Amino acid sequence: MRNIAEITVRRLSLYLRFLEEFESQGATTVSSEALAARGGTTSAQVRKDLSLFGSFGKRGLGYSVPQLIGQLREILGLGRGYRVVVVGAGKIGSALVHYRGFAERGFEVVGIFDADPAKIGKRWNGVTVRPVDQLSREVAGLDADMAIIATPGEVAQSVADLLVKAGITALLNFAPVQLQVPSGVTVKHVNLVLEMEALSFALAGGGGNGARSKK
Amino acid sequence: MRNIAEITVRRLSLYLRFLEEFESQGATTVSSEALAARGGTTSAQVRKDLSLFGSFGKRGLGYSVPQLIGQLREILGLGRGYRVVVVGAGKIGSALVHYRGFAERGFEVVGIFDADPAKIGKRWNGVTVRPVDQLSREVAGLDADMAIIATPGEVAQSVADLLVKAGITALLNFAPVQLQVPSGVTVKHVNLVLEMEALSFALAGGGGNGARSKK
Repeated sequence: MRNIAEITVRRLSLYLRFLEEFESQGATTVSSEALAARGGTTSAQVRKDLSLFGSFGKRGLGYSVPQLIGQLREILGLGRGYRVVVVGAGKIGSALVHYRGFAERGFEVVGIFDADPAKIGKRWNGVTVRPVDQLSREVAGLDADMAIIATPGEVAQSVADLLVKAGITALLNFAPVQLQVPSGVTVKHVNLVLEMEALSFALAGGGGNGARSKK
Repeated sequence: MRNIAEITVRRLSLYLRFLEEFESQGATTVSSEALAARGGTTSAQVRKDLSLFGSFGKRGLGYSVPQLIGQLREILGLGRGYRVVVVGAGKIGSALVHYRGFAERGFEVVGIFDADPAKIGKRWNGVTVRPVDQLSREVAGLDADMAIIATPGEVAQSVADLLVKAGITALLNFAPVQLQVPSGVTVKHVNLVLEMEALSFALAGGGGNGARSKK
């Protein structure tokens, strides 16, 4: 498979969401125009994005909604479930463990780790908080595919190192640091302060009027 | 000011973080090479990003750390504090209200709103949870600059409409929907499921080896 830009993958995820909306409203086919209108993009962009992965839809007939849902789920690797460990049982970790949206999409939290003795042993959403110093040993036993790092910044890199050593190749990082990982490991960052700063940049007049308006 | 790409603003935020690190380690000057090395980018990129906003640093001498920190804070609109309201007092809303990183950066949560009578009146981090049906009236009184939407998807658009009507022009949206806002309003989205799907895409072999490795 060729090298696909991050922003394209993001649009595929959104198309999947919109298709599921259309399906829940009873639609069986959809045009690239309708998909584009729902997502604030162009029909040419929709067709181009999908064409990267093969030939979908029929000229003049549009796309079959259930078929395209199935194909996008497969492209996005959602045909299977994923086992996720969360490191850091603070407020963000707690929000993540209890977030229904993950389970609905097939991301199952199978382990939570923290260094705080007051938290270790607690059960959250049916999963027991484990001591972080057993991370290396337990991750393999949990058969985890992905990990979410929600620790303080100071320890995030060492946690990432442990996770990578334990065989995890997909990390979502909430800690406010840039993680260094070996090639073959995918890291996505969620940095809430950066998002807020992008807002303050816009409020400060940055980006001109064009960039301040966003559909 | 010219139109600045989102990704550039993100790098500026990261440069600011790295400069603060360097400062805390006692550095007074820094080269574009050192900044680039810390951020996994090139010195040409650093110089290009900064040149968008004027002339910084001296050839051969590098940048003055405290001066560049001040300039980046000004560019990013961080020379002042921001008053933020959070709508939705669920797990994510709670994590946000208690998140120290916001206050440290000058983003002060001044109001929390929810529809659940069991939550209304509770005090979180010194801020009382208010009824969401008083949102329009209270946002003006709170003199808020920004709002964070952490509601269920079904109500996010109507909450956004109320906020925009109340004069808020900067929104951070955690709800899993695309918000439609008038021009002049900036919206940033944090969609955790999209981030997880970008990971599953990578695990499924998407993007090839190049895209899977990320420094």
